[in-house]
Amino acid sequence: MTRFALTIEFDGTPFFGLQRQKHGPSVQQSIEDALTRVTGEKAVLHSAGRTDTGVHALGMVSHVDLVKNIAPFRLMEALNAHLRPDPIAVIACRETEPEWHARFSCIGRRYLYRIVNRRAPLTLARNRAWQVAHDLDHEAMHRAAQALCGRHDFTTFRSVHCQAADPVKTLDRLDVVRARNDFGEEIHIHAEARSFLHHQVRSMVGCLKLVGAGSWREEQLAEALAAKDRSKLGLNAPPQGLYFVEARYSDDPQGD
Amino acid sequence: MTRFALTIEFDGTPFFGLQRQKHGPSVQQSIEDALTRVTGEKAVLHSAGRTDTGVHALGMVSHVDLVKNIAPFRLMEALNAHLRPDPIAVIACRETEPEWHARFSCIGRRYLYRIVNRRAPLTLARNRAWQVAHDLDHEAMHRAAQALCGRHDFTTFRSVHCQAADPVKTLDRLDVVRARNDFGEEIHIHAEARSFLHHQVRSMVGCLKLVGAGSWREEQLAEALAAKDRSKLGLNAPPQGLYFVEARYSDDPQGD
Repeated sequence: MTRFALTIEFDGTPFFGLQRQKHGPSVQQSIEDALTRVTGEKAVLHSAGRTDTGVHALGMVSHVDLVKNIAPFRLMEALNAHLRPDPIAVIACRETEPEWHARFSCIGRRYLYRIVNRRAPLTLARNRAWQVAHDLDHEAMHRAAQALCGRHDFTTFRSVHCQAADPVKTLDRLDVVRARNDFGEEIHIHAEARSFLHHQVRSMVGCLKLVGAGSWREEQLAEALAAKDRSKLGLNAPPQGLYFVEARYSDDPQGD
Repeated sequence: MTRFALTIEFDGTPFFGLQRQKHGPSVQQSIEDALTRVTGEKAVLHSAGRTDTGVHALGMVSHVDLVKNIAPFRLMEALNAHLRPDPIAVIACRETEPEWHARFSCIGRRYLYRIVNRRAPLTLARNRAWQVAHDLDHEAMHRAAQALCGRHDFTTFRSVHCQAADPVKTLDRLDVVRARNDFGEEIHIHAEARSFLHHQVRSMVGCLKLVGAGSWREEQLAEALAAKDRSKLGLNAPPQGLYFVEARYSDDPQGD
């Protein structure tokens, strides 16, 4: 039995999220089906994060155990061939120690949220970003965001369906920046933590948008956090702007 | 009668190009239909450039003459409402002098070509870039590209369907760079000229790819140019990597 770590990129638009669902297609099901076609084995995919319907990944990390003797490069190529035409790609593949675990060894997760701040509807970025028509003050959003950094009870920013035992998390980074490239100007929100609660990033982004639009005072974000009350949440940002960017691991295969 | 200049962004994937076609949907037809629904008029759209099936635009400039008395902002909003669900957006709209012409007043056109240089298939960038699996030497591509800059007979890099009277054009810029962003690393090719021949950018990019892959010596690009012979073309790059980025105008409404 060999454990393989896979780095996965996907367009979340056609999927009911990463994890397997009874009621519709999932990234996990597509990859597990491709694994079966490549190896004949029924393997289970374990991933660093869970993602909702419509959320994308640039560098999700997953692992799988296989009996078949296959080189990582060959496995990657075969999976990509069998994943077509689903918008899922294995962009890296390596063998790991059997103790290494894509979810439990992960010591850091990074998300990106894209807002296109303009009146015109999206074309090339449709299903890839949140279009917000009224002007957003990204500097006010960034200042307000700093109140969320550090160790807090994030109950306000947690889905009622969240299964985490503890709502206390340490948020290492929540930066709001204007990013300009050939495709126009966007507001990017970068979030990093060891781990996140279900809907935490989208809930934080939704409230930051209220601050940026002037509907919330900057201090209201800290007040919502302190309330530890989901009903104080201003807005949950839509899924299509959210990207799982990166999972970090220590050199120690057991995690830090 | 008022002339309006429109700046247009579109995802070219579902269209048979910008200009109206008998055999399928076009960006021009969608916009002209929306104009009719907004104004009741049968207006004709004139554009700075033509684009092929699958080619995108970030800032195409077009103009239209309307009898209806309407503010530019209202026209833009109404067009965007009527263009849904087509992936076309009017991102700017202004009144112009009646002598100003989106095509004939244009003194500069800029294109971007995106190559994703990796083995894995595209997911989020599918239909948005050319995936090239073997390693490309972008520095060799850039060096070779400089031989095409300046005033030349571009017959080699011209479609057999090109309707231009003269194959002599002045290429102002052909830069090949590695661009890194949150979505990964890409090779971007920037091309600027007063005007281009039909397929010129894609033909130049196709040959540059051969240089980058080592299939062509760097000098072969200059040799192909000097041959003035379409049969010396190495490769026409596919349309989905090409973006019409910008049309430039002098302050003089008649052009320069």
